[in-house]
Amino acid sequence: SHYTVTILVINYFSELTGTCEPQLTVDLRRPSGPYSRVFQHRRKCHSLVDHFGFDVNLTFKQRYLVANQYWKKENGVILFYTGNEGDITWFCKNTGFMWDVAEELKAMLVFAEHRYYGESLPFGNLSFTDSKHLNYLTSEQALADFAILIESLKKNIPGARNSPVIAIGGSYGGMLAAWFRMKYPHIVIGALAASAPIWQFMDLVPCGKSGPNCSETIQSSWKAIDRLTSTGEGVQWISEAFHLCNPLRSQTDIIVLKSWLAETWVNLAMVDYPYSSDFLMPLPAWPIKEVCKYLTDPNESDKVLIQNLSQAVNIYYNYSGEANCLNTSQTATSNLGIQGWSYQACTEMVMPICTTGISDMFEPQEWDFAAYSDQCFLEWGVRPRPLWIPTVFGGKNISSHSNIIFSNGALDPWYAGGVNENITDNLVSIVIPDGAHHLDLRARNIDDPQSVLFARAKEVEYMKKWIEQFNGHH
Amino acid sequence: SHYTVTILVINYFSELTGTCEPQLTVDLRRPSGPYSRVFQHRRKCHSLVDHFGFDVNLTFKQRYLVANQYWKKENGVILFYTGNEGDITWFCKNTGFMWDVAEELKAMLVFAEHRYYGESLPFGNLSFTDSKHLNYLTSEQALADFAILIESLKKNIPGARNSPVIAIGGSYGGMLAAWFRMKYPHIVIGALAASAPIWQFMDLVPCGKSGPNCSETIQSSWKAIDRLTSTGEGVQWISEAFHLCNPLRSQTDIIVLKSWLAETWVNLAMVDYPYSSDFLMPLPAWPIKEVCKYLTDPNESDKVLIQNLSQAVNIYYNYSGEANCLNTSQTATSNLGIQGWSYQACTEMVMPICTTGISDMFEPQEWDFAAYSDQCFLEWGVRPRPLWIPTVFGGKNISSHSNIIFSNGALDPWYAGGVNENITDNLVSIVIPDGAHHLDLRARNIDDPQSVLFARAKEVEYMKKWIEQFNGHH
Repeated sequence: SHYTVTILVINYFSELTGTCEPQLTVDLRRPSGPYSRVFQHRRKCHSLVDHFGFDVNLTFKQRYLVANQYWKKENGVILFYTGNEGDITWFCKNTGFMWDVAEELKAMLVFAEHRYYGESLPFGNLSFTDSKHLNYLTSEQALADFAILIESLKKNIPGARNSPVIAIGGSYGGMLAAWFRMKYPHIVIGALAASAPIWQFMDLVPCGKSGPNCSETIQSSWKAIDRLTSTGEGVQWISEAFHLCNPLRSQTDIIVLKSWLAETWVNLAMVDYPYSSDFLMPLPAWPIKEVCKYLTDPNESDKVLIQNLSQAVNIYYNYSGEANCLNTSQTATSNLGIQGWSYQACTEMVMPICTTGISDMFEPQEWDFAAYSDQCFLEWGVRPRPLWIPTVFGGKNISSHSNIIFSNGALDPWYAGGVNENITDNLVSIVIPDGAHHLDLRARNIDDPQSVLFARAKEVEYMKKWIEQFNGHH
Repeated sequence: SHYTVTILVINYFSELTGTCEPQLTVDLRRPSGPYSRVFQHRRKCHSLVDHFGFDVNLTFKQRYLVANQYWKKENGVILFYTGNEGDITWFCKNTGFMWDVAEELKAMLVFAEHRYYGESLPFGNLSFTDSKHLNYLTSEQALADFAILIESLKKNIPGARNSPVIAIGGSYGGMLAAWFRMKYPHIVIGALAASAPIWQFMDLVPCGKSGPNCSETIQSSWKAIDRLTSTGEGVQWISEAFHLCNPLRSQTDIIVLKSWLAETWVNLAMVDYPYSSDFLMPLPAWPIKEVCKYLTDPNESDKVLIQNLSQAVNIYYNYSGEANCLNTSQTATSNLGIQGWSYQACTEMVMPICTTGISDMFEPQEWDFAAYSDQCFLEWGVRPRPLWIPTVFGGKNISSHSNIIFSNGALDPWYAGGVNENITDNLVSIVIPDGAHHLDLRARNIDDPQSVLFARAKEVEYMKKWIEQFNGHH
């Protein structure tokens, strides 16, 4: 049962103008699927570009989606997706969990787009031109957008004023959900932070990387590539073997090829879902198993090994069979905002990654912050501040907060950066042994493993408890 | 026992450079007074101008003071004064409470200067030139300064790494102490927020103003001024009666005179301390009582009434007898940064004030946000955002936080904007019936009323409990 949502109405928002009254309620039910949706239509209006300074008083259009079909004003809830680094409609499509629990929780669903992604570009086409235009792309600004959006929704939607709100997000969106509860506990009564590596900063956790299990062949492949690319003929042969759109021309191209391959293996582990899916790429069920079928013998000759590797890579990049050639500049869906994320990684979101070649299947590479910083300065004209996120969001010292669920899948390469033990009774961890990257946020599926069903049931149980607590106080 | 501190060492700070190693420990004991002090000397270095954006990567010198005479590495504490809108050495001198409890709590004392005040000017003499240079003057930036300063102190002072930290502040500094605990609970285990009107925003509390009790004469004075200034001779007479340095020349001058008088009465109520003191101005004990001696009969003729008023005003502006004339452009010590505060009041710190002329002794004046905003735009080129502080710091919905003491003096005109009832067991109010503006933060004095002694004892008790809780967890 492939899960799709057609987003029919795009909503924009403003606090300052006060003109964002609900205009129309458009009922658009999807006739064929199990999930009918109602999107509430709102006028396009504007949000502040800079919440933390008063000199720049510009505004921008922020997009969000609202579905209120199952919402009950009495003892209902608003489930608020804290949008991350991509098109919000794509996250909406890939967060079926919220739709699945909407009726049970009498929930209004809101999906808020993160500034600088999707259609929420503060300076339109100029948003990524330089560090001046990018200056307002931070997690703190995004959280402030969310806070003001929620206040506005509660003011403007009749009956919403006293509705509790729960933040939900996955990956960076999961970090935002957790951080939102930490910084704005007066606005959200709790948060579900799915696959949120909030500790993949500084030296809070080891920087090591993980990936698929059939690692010996991959481990052997780097040297095989080196040997083959030592001759001009070999370089040409490899370009053809991988069906590259742009044949390798320089030593830099070979480095790019290798990091593209490494990222491919990590991405595959992230989306190792138990059923056919289309998140980063269209893929079969348990894609790692499919990929590993081609990677059984690490002792093949270089050319045979690379040919096998190419077939494995094709599972990820060309499962649909529609690609004529592969492009090493792309590793996932274009719904992800790679420019925005590259900037964020060069400023606040400094998440150290390293490889040993021994405990993992990658070429050995230390975490070299100086080189990283220089690269960021070259690319974006900014220097990263690796200490800032732990300073502002608490690092490992977060026990004074409450009502946050940290869920993590053990198959997910980001697992190790997450919170995988209960911190307090109200700051809890749910580990999903058979789960990849935020599997729990995906729509229910007949092939879901028991462990994710259990995780989702626990998550709903916690959310109900928070709602009850909230209603008890009001 | 007049309380003075001579600040002997000025300290500056930096995170990024990492060069702020302790350089010298200068022992400078004050021989005559009851409080000997040790200031730890640190090199001058730099703090970030913009914590919330990466385009401006400038730094500035932030000043702070450290006294570690009574500090014990084992089970001691760091008491951290969250500097507010003035010279930090002046706040240090007027926060004797911290010195008085240092030995009992085995405390290191740190007084951190707020950016844009005292000597901590991000752009030196240019800091107040325009809205571009003022753009980094916000409470969020100041809190981030404090967070990074504490992290740096804990890293650089041997034995401080695991020391708990408690934030202490008065007035706006008290708001900062409370907000600091709310936003950075991983950095401070608790906060003492003295006379912090955190609810004097939006419509969280009524906007009414209070002042001295001998109000009938003051209430009559506004009309008397109007009548007298209706003739040129009267205008001149009033200028002389008040010993104004600059005689009144226009209708605007008369408006300024009246608002100067109104602010004077409010200031007098703020510093109505039970002993001779020098906070906003040098004053006798219980200055309101002294002032009111001149304001007993509201039915005097206009000229006699104004002459009495002038004598009352002189208690505030010329108790020392050194002033040759009075200046309506100043209402308190120049240790306060009036430029910086004017900007802050025009951006984040929008604290509605209104008067009725019936329930108070002032001329009736509604809270006119539109006019206020226009005035701010004229003066600073910025528009205030009156909703922001409640959005970011929770307004009345702060019960999920913990370990904050809100103390308020019932004599203080800011009393009504504070938290005067316990919110939870860990978010407590202490009301001091005989206290003016943060009397509890002042040095102990033989003339202290019982209620402030009781308040201070409670405050120490709470702080000890927090320290014990912290030590129990570590």
